[in-house]
Amino acid sequence: MDYKNMHPSELRSLIRNGKISGSTAGYALGYAQANLAILKKEHAFDFLLFAQRNPKSCPILDVIEPGNVAPNNISSHADIRTDVPKYRIYKKGELVEEVTDLHNYWSDDFVCFLIGCSFSFENALMNNDIEVRHIKDASNVPMYKTNIPTTPAGIFEGPTVVSMRPIAEKDIVRAVQVTSRFPSVHGAPLHIGQPESIGIKDLSAPDFGDAVRIEEGEVPVFWACGVTPQAIAMHIKPDLMITHAPGHMFITDIRDEFYGVL
Amino acid sequence: MDYKNMHPSELRSLIRNGKISGSTAGYALGYAQANLAILKKEHAFDFLLFAQRNPKSCPILDVIEPGNVAPNNISSHADIRTDVPKYRIYKKGELVEEVTDLHNYWSDDFVCFLIGCSFSFENALMNNDIEVRHIKDASNVPMYKTNIPTTPAGIFEGPTVVSMRPIAEKDIVRAVQVTSRFPSVHGAPLHIGQPESIGIKDLSAPDFGDAVRIEEGEVPVFWACGVTPQAIAMHIKPDLMITHAPGHMFITDIRDEFYGVL
Repeated sequence: MDYKNMHPSELRSLIRNGKISGSTAGYALGYAQANLAILKKEHAFDFLLFAQRNPKSCPILDVIEPGNVAPNNISSHADIRTDVPKYRIYKKGELVEEVTDLHNYWSDDFVCFLIGCSFSFENALMNNDIEVRHIKDASNVPMYKTNIPTTPAGIFEGPTVVSMRPIAEKDIVRAVQVTSRFPSVHGAPLHIGQPESIGIKDLSAPDFGDAVRIEEGEVPVFWACGVTPQAIAMHIKPDLMITHAPGHMFITDIRDEFYGVL
Repeated sequence: MDYKNMHPSELRSLIRNGKISGSTAGYALGYAQANLAILKKEHAFDFLLFAQRNPKSCPILDVIEPGNVAPNNISSHADIRTDVPKYRIYKKGELVEEVTDLHNYWSDDFVCFLIGCSFSFENALMNNDIEVRHIKDASNVPMYKTNIPTTPAGIFEGPTVVSMRPIAEKDIVRAVQVTSRFPSVHGAPLHIGQPESIGIKDLSAPDFGDAVRIEEGEVPVFWACGVTPQAIAMHIKPDLMITHAPGHMFITDIRDEFYGVL
């Protein structure tokens, strides 16, 4: 099956019917994919405010209000209970189960947050002939906890998580320009250069994902990461939180370019 | 007093002590000013989500959580109960009083929303030698209800309100570029040209503000307006809502340029 060139609605249908349960990386190329965080209504205002205050790590693409199941602003005929290939159920900060369907867990007081994903700006980098190392090497992007605090909101607070991509010195200016155009999918880098400056001790030991090789003449460049809200929610240990499984995203009907400014 | 070149913190102090109670247009030039909307906590999630879904008309600069009085992300040592020159008290959608101090109305379950203001992008236009007609003529900007619907959230829904500035044909491309850089203060125009296309019947009869002259060779250009959230809140008639009086803004410590992208 040519998942790369398939329309998002077809892919969501295959996912809903259990035909796809793996990572969605590279699927429906050119369309934005989204991270998922589901919380009970009592935490919804705090979390939305946290996202508003930390737009680089938590760029909100859509919110599904209590009693609804469809992210109608970024898709049509979707059902968030079935249209993500794999979900993670967290209770009091502990991962207790992975499931491919949320019907058994669903509650009408859930609020679902769809959050921008770096797949979009990685496409933009590659369209500019800037190599994305972990894609080239078919591994996971390396992610690190930093000493950059998020701006707290209500119960939500904690450190920013970043992803790292080694960029050739000659391409750094262009990488900043290209990713700056996409504030809804993490946007410009948070930091360029010394990992120590943002509290990262060892690039070869990421907190999430896989280490990647850094070649001669390349500089580590760090972007705010969509894992931040999950890491922070885990930190504050709500009774129940549901997320997508890493890499198993919700595929939207919105083209990456729609999120480009200027 | 040279209010134009005064620092925002000095101006807020003069406002707090009753020395300034008029419009803040042109004060602390180069610093962003903010619209104010205060709602009870029960409506806060819906309103924040409404703003997130309608970022052009409701760009959120800061939110003050219940029990607090200072917008600490955009100012220091401020008190939202005293630092706006004039407030409007609305009960069930009716304006019942204008006051210069909120102590008599204050409640610990208030959530305050500070919303971007077009003063910032008007500075950017003038810095590019693009005339802003209502400033040149010392009148109020004309504002119109349109047939462009906002994206609803919870109880909040209704039409988008736009402001209009006549722009010389030769300057239109530059006006789009310049204002596009400032998505946090209404950003790019919503519409260029025929008012009828967006449901405006008569430019000489604005719904808010004053009509302005349109000269030969000029085209009406329409931007999403910060009056939208007020107009919509009035439409849904909450028991209590407090706003700034038009033109009587909260002056932030953030430079306009801080909100510029690229």
